[in-house]
Amino acid sequence: MTNNYVKIFDTTLRDGEQSPGATMTSAEKLEVAHNLARLGVDIIEAGFPAASPDDLEAARRIAVEVGNPPEGQPDAKVPVIAGLARANKPDIDKAWEAVKDAKRPRIHTFLATSAIHMKHKLKMDPEDVVQRVSEMVTYAKTLCSDVEFSPEDAGRSEPEFLYVVLAEAIKAGASTLNIPDTVGYTTPDEFYNLIDGIIQHTPGMHDGITISVHCHDDLGLATANTLAGIRAGARQAEVTVNGIGERAGNTSLEEVVMALKTRHPVFNLETGIETQQLSRISKLVSNYTGIVVQPNKAIVGSNAFAHEAGIHQDGMLKHQTTYEIMRPEDVGVNQSNLVLGKHSGRHALRNRLAEMGHSLDEIELDKAFARFKELADRKKVITDLDLEALIADEFYKPRDVYLLNGMQVSCGTMGMPTATVRLRGPDGVIHTVAAIGTGPVDATYKAIDSIVSVPCTLLEFNIHSITQGIDALGEVTVRIQSEQGSTTMDAQSEVTYARVYGGHGADTDIIVASAKAYINALNKLIIARTEGSEKVKDNIGVMLG
Amino acid sequence: MTNNYVKIFDTTLRDGEQSPGATMTSAEKLEVAHNLARLGVDIIEAGFPAASPDDLEAARRIAVEVGNPPEGQPDAKVPVIAGLARANKPDIDKAWEAVKDAKRPRIHTFLATSAIHMKHKLKMDPEDVVQRVSEMVTYAKTLCSDVEFSPEDAGRSEPEFLYVVLAEAIKAGASTLNIPDTVGYTTPDEFYNLIDGIIQHTPGMHDGITISVHCHDDLGLATANTLAGIRAGARQAEVTVNGIGERAGNTSLEEVVMALKTRHPVFNLETGIETQQLSRISKLVSNYTGIVVQPNKAIVGSNAFAHEAGIHQDGMLKHQTTYEIMRPEDVGVNQSNLVLGKHSGRHALRNRLAEMGHSLDEIELDKAFARFKELADRKKVITDLDLEALIADEFYKPRDVYLLNGMQVSCGTMGMPTATVRLRGPDGVIHTVAAIGTGPVDATYKAIDSIVSVPCTLLEFNIHSITQGIDALGEVTVRIQSEQGSTTMDAQSEVTYARVYGGHGADTDIIVASAKAYINALNKLIIARTEGSEKVKDNIGVMLG
Repeated sequence: MTNNYVKIFDTTLRDGEQSPGATMTSAEKLEVAHNLARLGVDIIEAGFPAASPDDLEAARRIAVEVGNPPEGQPDAKVPVIAGLARANKPDIDKAWEAVKDAKRPRIHTFLATSAIHMKHKLKMDPEDVVQRVSEMVTYAKTLCSDVEFSPEDAGRSEPEFLYVVLAEAIKAGASTLNIPDTVGYTTPDEFYNLIDGIIQHTPGMHDGITISVHCHDDLGLATANTLAGIRAGARQAEVTVNGIGERAGNTSLEEVVMALKTRHPVFNLETGIETQQLSRISKLVSNYTGIVVQPNKAIVGSNAFAHEAGIHQDGMLKHQTTYEIMRPEDVGVNQSNLVLGKHSGRHALRNRLAEMGHSLDEIELDKAFARFKELADRKKVITDLDLEALIADEFYKPRDVYLLNGMQVSCGTMGMPTATVRLRGPDGVIHTVAAIGTGPVDATYKAIDSIVSVPCTLLEFNIHSITQGIDALGEVTVRIQSEQGSTTMDAQSEVTYARVYGGHGADTDIIVASAKAYINALNKLIIARTEGSEKVKDNIGVMLG
Repeated sequence: MTNNYVKIFDTTLRDGEQSPGATMTSAEKLEVAHNLARLGVDIIEAGFPAASPDDLEAARRIAVEVGNPPEGQPDAKVPVIAGLARANKPDIDKAWEAVKDAKRPRIHTFLATSAIHMKHKLKMDPEDVVQRVSEMVTYAKTLCSDVEFSPEDAGRSEPEFLYVVLAEAIKAGASTLNIPDTVGYTTPDEFYNLIDGIIQHTPGMHDGITISVHCHDDLGLATANTLAGIRAGARQAEVTVNGIGERAGNTSLEEVVMALKTRHPVFNLETGIETQQLSRISKLVSNYTGIVVQPNKAIVGSNAFAHEAGIHQDGMLKHQTTYEIMRPEDVGVNQSNLVLGKHSGRHALRNRLAEMGHSLDEIELDKAFARFKELADRKKVITDLDLEALIADEFYKPRDVYLLNGMQVSCGTMGMPTATVRLRGPDGVIHTVAAIGTGPVDATYKAIDSIVSVPCTLLEFNIHSITQGIDALGEVTVRIQSEQGSTTMDAQSEVTYARVYGGHGADTDIIVASAKAYINALNKLIIARTEGSEKVKDNIGVMLG
């Protein structure tokens, strides 16, 4: 790695997953981590292990499976696996427990340095903050050779105080210093000056230290601030896929990477990202988190490339550069989208799934093939997105506490929408209930509620067609919040809140997809509430590796 | 207006509406224009009148109704109404025809100045471009005292050539010079230098000239570039609500305005925007265009403010500024969201609708009240968003060529999804057809297709619940593309393409909402294809003013 290499530190699974409703199952996180590794990110922040036993276990699993080379390829490049910890021993111990089995583990610890955070949140004097940073980086360093330190809310901190804190972190052994604009407050010029000042004025700064930037998008400036920090000398960018994250989210991985690539003569910097995979991982993260990408999102929005938009282009193709500064194929738009049809066999399915990164055993392949044939009967062509939805629906879901056994719905303008739902419960008993609602989904959910009886609030309900055409597979994502029980903690605000669970379901019948999505979310909630992390571990065992 | 005032030039209805599928009806455009005026924008670009007779007519209507003070208030502030024109006489004539009845009309003409555009698109020599600009600005000036000129693709043009072209535009009488980064290519530093250079080096530059910036978000830098241009001295920003627009869209109005406001000490600049209306207009534009706003969109995304996210906030509220740099109420989040219930009367409905900007006559109010009571029977509380959906569904739709007269659907896991649909056709005849599909929506659409018989492609299908809760009103948006007939032209690329029509429908039964949305889009397509602009005019006549 030369000095013109910018490391991409992906925090989709930590800061991204903290955005409300983005909660993923351990199996989903593992699948995203595998895909991030394939994308070529340098560091994967796998979670905040102190938040809950589930978070620790999910990060541990990623460290073991994604943070080590595949068998027989001991020299294969693997990403660094990082765990986040507040600046206290129990957090650091948990982060280490999560990442220690990775080939290249990292502990990332942080403490706020802005006046407003020190006063209101930490209730600590600046001197105590300096001392705590020194002690905790030193402690982390006794466990792990690779320690990253972040002065939280650096964007609103006094630069002179930052120099003092960062100097202590360097003395204590931190090799990466990450400068977060936690609340998305700075302008690019301010952020450039902040990073430049840190590099110039921090005592003990040397070539072995990597300066990192971590920006939030509250004013729409995250990408510009990140690039400003890089211009000032930062060589690590902390980003998320689709820019997901709390509030307006984090810096978008795809925007920073494509700006550096498209304007290479300006920046003269490289990343290790295989940009052709950007479109695919964007869709994967959107499907698993249920957080939609708006059509006009840069790089990965469905309209981002003009020719994707259903417009007949006549003259445009001839001089694509007149209106397009990137080629769609550079970010993987439109790659081998049309893949399988009704007559495709088991072998073709296995091959395509393997190319997509899903290695199924024989039993799993049997299940997937049965689902595939069922879908192919109803839909002319099966695309990669259909397959992803099918695989997600079949394999990356929590163990079935409740399972949809059958349903039947009638609705329309002329009567009361009625749903009859048959579920198999955890005891193996079949329950059948009919209910009336304001619409078919409401009726279905009322029927499910009267069987499952777990008080929860439906926060959001979304349906979209995954693929074009009237016979498209519909995917439903819902977010529910438990009215009692299971909580998780936000790393920064230390606020404990009732967890939000996302569920998804895919079917050509959107009412059936709606039922599956709701049952999926309820199952996650029930597992988290009643069984804790041990059961989640078992649960992972039966899923795809 | 002092020199620290930044004019907001909104092009939602022109550059925004050009994004695929964002097509709005004339009545919807008029409603958006009324709301933009209330928001306080300084200039409304009402369309590209040469694109089609519909575009001209919609812009003309906006010029008449929004571009003039209400009766009895001759001194009320009204926005400038601008029409876009390529640099040729027929376009300029059509733009003038569209805007001439506004109190403060503007003709906005443009010609490309980058080598790649001059060579491949215009096939003109630089000298000819200079001469054409001079001639056409002069011509526009004979019609209209307020002329704006844009050198298209300025971001990739030679600065020295720009100075020459802009000097000619000034000589010919342009009072606003707009500098577009048409393809979203520049970085903030480059754009700052471009604007600074133009102000320093353009011969004839003087205080009466307003420099404007118009950025696109292909690399995620539109907001940063716009702010950089403003720092360099630009005093007009061209923006769209939600940042909609071709490809990755235009600069977001809300991001630029809130950055200037939140970081006022840095910029020391003012705008005329009433920021409390930002949340509401964002939802309005999203509903009318069918272009969703992602949850992590800055300022107007559903997660943009932490406390909106369904999280119990315990300690957070006490020190809101620890994590929030803007107050949600400053952008109108959460304002009087809960408004009406089952027992609310006609008077309460009329008042609330008037507050929301809908002035209904007695007959319209009767219709709205009937719909309201029908909804209140099914749904406990009716929010502003419910009302917006209801009003949009009842009034802002094209004249009913086909009208849903009744439908009945059955579906589920156990059989073939079947839909029976009854439509009243343009001839008044009732058609009833049953069809089988892969799901209830597919079955419904197949039944509609077999009655309507207009070949079209379904490009996109989206359902979301407008409000929280299981009994929420579902809103469906679809986009279809005609397989023959009606076309429109893109201002810049001069590409003529088959128009994409969006439709929306709202109902507590999402299958019924799906049917309404599809019929709505089909009606738009049929009107555009078979009847042209005259009928659209008639159509406006029966809608809300």
